[in-house]
Amino acid sequence: MVRTVKLAVIPGDGIGPEVVSEALKALDAAVRGTDLVIEQTPYSLGAARYLETGDVLTDDDLSAIKQYDAILLGAVGGTPGDPRLAGANIERGLLLKLRFELDHYVNLRPTVLHPGVVSPLSNPGEVDFVVVREGTEGPYVGNGGAIRTGTPAEVANEVSVNTAYGVERVVRYAFAAASARPRKKLTLVHKTNVLVFAGSLWKRTVDAVGLEYPDVAVDYLHIDAATIFFVTDPARFDVIVTDNLFGDILTDLAGAISGGIGLAASGNINPDGRFPSMFEPVHGSAPDIAGKGIADPTAAILSVALLLRHLGEADAAAEVERAVAADIAERGDARRSTPEVGDAIAARIGS
Amino acid sequence: MVRTVKLAVIPGDGIGPEVVSEALKALDAAVRGTDLVIEQTPYSLGAARYLETGDVLTDDDLSAIKQYDAILLGAVGGTPGDPRLAGANIERGLLLKLRFELDHYVNLRPTVLHPGVVSPLSNPGEVDFVVVREGTEGPYVGNGGAIRTGTPAEVANEVSVNTAYGVERVVRYAFAAASARPRKKLTLVHKTNVLVFAGSLWKRTVDAVGLEYPDVAVDYLHIDAATIFFVTDPARFDVIVTDNLFGDILTDLAGAISGGIGLAASGNINPDGRFPSMFEPVHGSAPDIAGKGIADPTAAILSVALLLRHLGEADAAAEVERAVAADIAERGDARRSTPEVGDAIAARIGS
Ligand SMILES: CC(C)[C@H](C(=O)O)[C@@H](O)C(=O)O
Ligand SMILES: CC(C)[C@H](C(=O)O)[C@@H](O)C(=O)O
Repeated sequence: MVRTVKLAVIPGDGIGPEVVSEALKALDAAVRGTDLVIEQTPYSLGAARYLETGDVLTDDDLSAIKQYDAILLGAVGGTPGDPRLAGANIERGLLLKLRFELDHYVNLRPTVLHPGVVSPLSNPGEVDFVVVREGTEGPYVGNGGAIRTGTPAEVANEVSVNTAYGVERVVRYAFAAASARPRKKLTLVHKTNVLVFAGSLWKRTVDAVGLEYPDVAVDYLHIDAATIFFVTDPARFDVIVTDNLFGDILTDLAGAISGGIGLAASGNINPDGRFPSMFEPVHGSAPDIAGKGIADPTAAILSVALLLRHLGEADAAAEVERAVAADIAERGDARRSTPEVGDAIAARIGS
Repeated sequence: MVRTVKLAVIPGDGIGPEVVSEALKALDAAVRGTDLVIEQTPYSLGAARYLETGDVLTDDDLSAIKQYDAILLGAVGGTPGDPRLAGANIERGLLLKLRFELDHYVNLRPTVLHPGVVSPLSNPGEVDFVVVREGTEGPYVGNGGAIRTGTPAEVANEVSVNTAYGVERVVRYAFAAASARPRKKLTLVHKTNVLVFAGSLWKRTVDAVGLEYPDVAVDYLHIDAATIFFVTDPARFDVIVTDNLFGDILTDLAGAISGGIGLAASGNINPDGRFPSMFEPVHGSAPDIAGKGIADPTAAILSVALLLRHLGEADAAAEVERAVAADIAERGDARRSTPEVGDAIAARIGS
């Protein structure tokens, strides 16, 4: 029986289209021989589209995208400092808007130091953890404002909003993830000694949900201390659950210690299935290297693995990850073009 | 002519008293032969004092401390999870209260990778930068609150407050610091694409003050990207200016890459001189190793160097730093006790 999945593809800006092409090759190879048919529809969104039409994300775009089963996104954002983009905040108006409107409350960011990858750490150990970053609350809610802007009396505030509703659901997801992994360890990262109200909510929620998971060992670290362990002993981590901003910071650092964000995949997940989930590399549009055919498509390809797992195709997902791991292991110092890497990985899938 | 400086000494909890003893040896050695006389008064503040008296920091304590020329602090905070401390937040009620009440708007945290120190990075390069962390605003203002606490409808907010007044003064300090250093480079770290109001204030302030410093090269990084460069290319940084929370995170990471926070010094500075500035190691009270005589007093000793420089004794400060660098260079793997390290460094000062 054939199962059809409707996939919205947003290649975006800069290196986005280049890495998405390769990710789609991997996706094609992975679904070959399964009962899955992926129906792809490209959406032109991002800085380029804004410069053409003045639109970042219209209501029509949004309703159209909501009809899909899932989304694959490359990267969005123009050249920093481009005066024509001064009026638009592509990150807020497009990327974050999608995460919020599609209720992507789990931002899932696995970190694996693959054999063959050179870490900037001299002694990283076996790094294999996943950050469960909250995606719809915290300092990302856009609840800021300013008065007397541009005067010596200006005050600019940013409000971090945290709800029991929002914290509990992501904490539950994290406990379930930890419980399904061999080491069964969950670390909450926050700053409870300073952000006492938000911190207390997170801490109490982890304590309460933890009672339902006696098999999961729970740990707590302040965000500052967590960054220390990321460079001195990253192998200690299994599952990390944290707020939107701390998760943003930790996952870039996680990418860096595990070989660069060219390898870091992510899923913006709506576990309820009410809205399509969105898969994207952690890296940005990198305008400086766009069009040169030198971007590493690996993070985008690994995001396809997360997409497949989300669609219930665990075997196909594992196959993509196996192919990537094998490619990485033999990569060495060879400089390959973006399509060369994509072709090499696609050729390994199912072979 | 003799100059008398009144120093309030707060040894604090855990390893605090142990490292402060050694720091005072270095201070004694450094002022010997100068016209400086340091009059020390110990203040018993911290978790131990709270357990004894129920007070964290009384109004009387605060007015007494305000009369000093400077403060040396070890570390405060009890054993995490101690139920007797559940009602007190020593960090907020003591450490942060001092920083706010004494208007320590510059939190100065130099990072140097000393020859002889093993970094967890395999190729750190020449690391020598200073983080100028804002100390009296941002998410640290204590402007949070919650409703319906403990119910499924709880909402917990934290407000980051940023003022032109507060941002401009710390940005000015950072530009002056950058201009006085050989490389003359200033990097603003923030998250302007998400925290748009606070970010815009910081960005505009740096742009405006930068016009007065044409000799200083200015750069901008998002906090997430900054953590990447901290592990891939920390040598690129010279002076970093950033907000209170980002500075907290970055300076622990900075400590980690430069050999551990056992070496990281800090100054909480009120540049106006209206209130005493406070010098303290970045590390905490480390209750797990307290009383064993194995804490590294180097960070506390380097904090004395910052104190001396703040008092206008640049030569004595450099002498302490020279002694520390020499000690570190010959440290090797030898396990020495806290007093052994302190004595060794003190013996090198002025010799
Ligand atoms: C582009 C930016 C808004 C985004 C974020 O802060 O979440 C990015 O850094 C990420 O981690 O996906
Ligand atoms: C103890 C804590 C409140 C403090 C801070 O967050 O500033 C510490 O981490 C520091 O960096 O001095």
